[in-house]
Amino acid sequence: MQELKDRIVKEGKVLPGGIIKVDGFLNHRVDTELLDHIAAEFGKCFDMDAVTVVLTAEASGIALASIVAQHYHKPMLFAKKAKSDNIEGGLYQSEIFSYTYKKKVTLLVSKEWLHAEDKVLVVDDFMANGEAMRGLCDIVEQAGAELMGIGCAVEKGFQGGGDRLREAGVNIHSLAVIDAVDPIVFRE
Amino acid sequence: MQELKDRIVKEGKVLPGGIIKVDGFLNHRVDTELLDHIAAEFGKCFDMDAVTVVLTAEASGIALASIVAQHYHKPMLFAKKAKSDNIEGGLYQSEIFSYTYKKKVTLLVSKEWLHAEDKVLVVDDFMANGEAMRGLCDIVEQAGAELMGIGCAVEKGFQGGGDRLREAGVNIHSLAVIDAVDPIVFRE
Repeated sequence: MQELKDRIVKEGKVLPGGIIKVDGFLNHRVDTELLDHIAAEFGKCFDMDAVTVVLTAEASGIALASIVAQHYHKPMLFAKKAKSDNIEGGLYQSEIFSYTYKKKVTLLVSKEWLHAEDKVLVVDDFMANGEAMRGLCDIVEQAGAELMGIGCAVEKGFQGGGDRLREAGVNIHSLAVIDAVDPIVFRE
Repeated sequence: MQELKDRIVKEGKVLPGGIIKVDGFLNHRVDTELLDHIAAEFGKCFDMDAVTVVLTAEASGIALASIVAQHYHKPMLFAKKAKSDNIEGGLYQSEIFSYTYKKKVTLLVSKEWLHAEDKVLVVDDFMANGEAMRGLCDIVEQAGAELMGIGCAVEKGFQGGGDRLREAGVNIHSLAVIDAVDPIVFRE
């Protein structure tokens, strides 16, 4: 998606360790109009009429998933990352490793809101090692629901998370795959 | 807002300790169309043309703030709740007590994305003790920006957070103020 790639080149910053900062438009200060354009682009990749729920993980994924869900008049469901007192009853759980926070976190989704009849589009703003995506796919499988695909805005291709999911046969589309940084090289 | 009150009565659940669960449409599984109606309602309470940024705190506030921001073609900015390696440089910080997680958390906003010229609408889906709101207002003040108001979907009036902000002269509007539970009583 050229608009997204242009924004990454113009406004993104590369930090030591291959960290790509896009926090001026994607995951701290959020350009909601850009997110809506991303939502429209996902419509070319996935059968959005068939999707029944858009699933993401807190926190920054919630912004994109909300805009995508609203664009297609679907509910949005987000996995929580820690057990709070306000989640009761049965939970789907998947343990992932957060490279951002350098620790294990557990993704939690209430069984009340995800069912075997659901056709799920998993959405996230950013994918590096793909741990959050892996956990979300695991939760979809636990629910016996159908994974319609994974829509990602920015994928760090050189960290391999997306390719592992592709090799596993997942219908994954990232709108900007970064294969190298400094300078930034996008996958064709 | 009658639509929101109707949903709370029909789908909300009251748990021991005065906890009101609205996780089927507001803060776990999210009805994005309802959020867009809430966004439209905020237009009656605040001068949205003058607002330059919609500010919230992660995690569940991001959904409503994203939809509000998109509705009025504004950027959305969310305070993070823990220091990650991906935030560099200057930060506005405010320490709050999270009753959900029973611990202190620090709200963080990069100084890069909030400035003295900004006119800020603070938005959250839910207010109980108002700690997140207090922290967000503190951050707006640190930035020297102007607080245009606080828009909240559901306020637990009996926990006093909203009234403390009203007494402090903040332009706060909650679209459903719950003054008692079991049975639920809304403030007129």
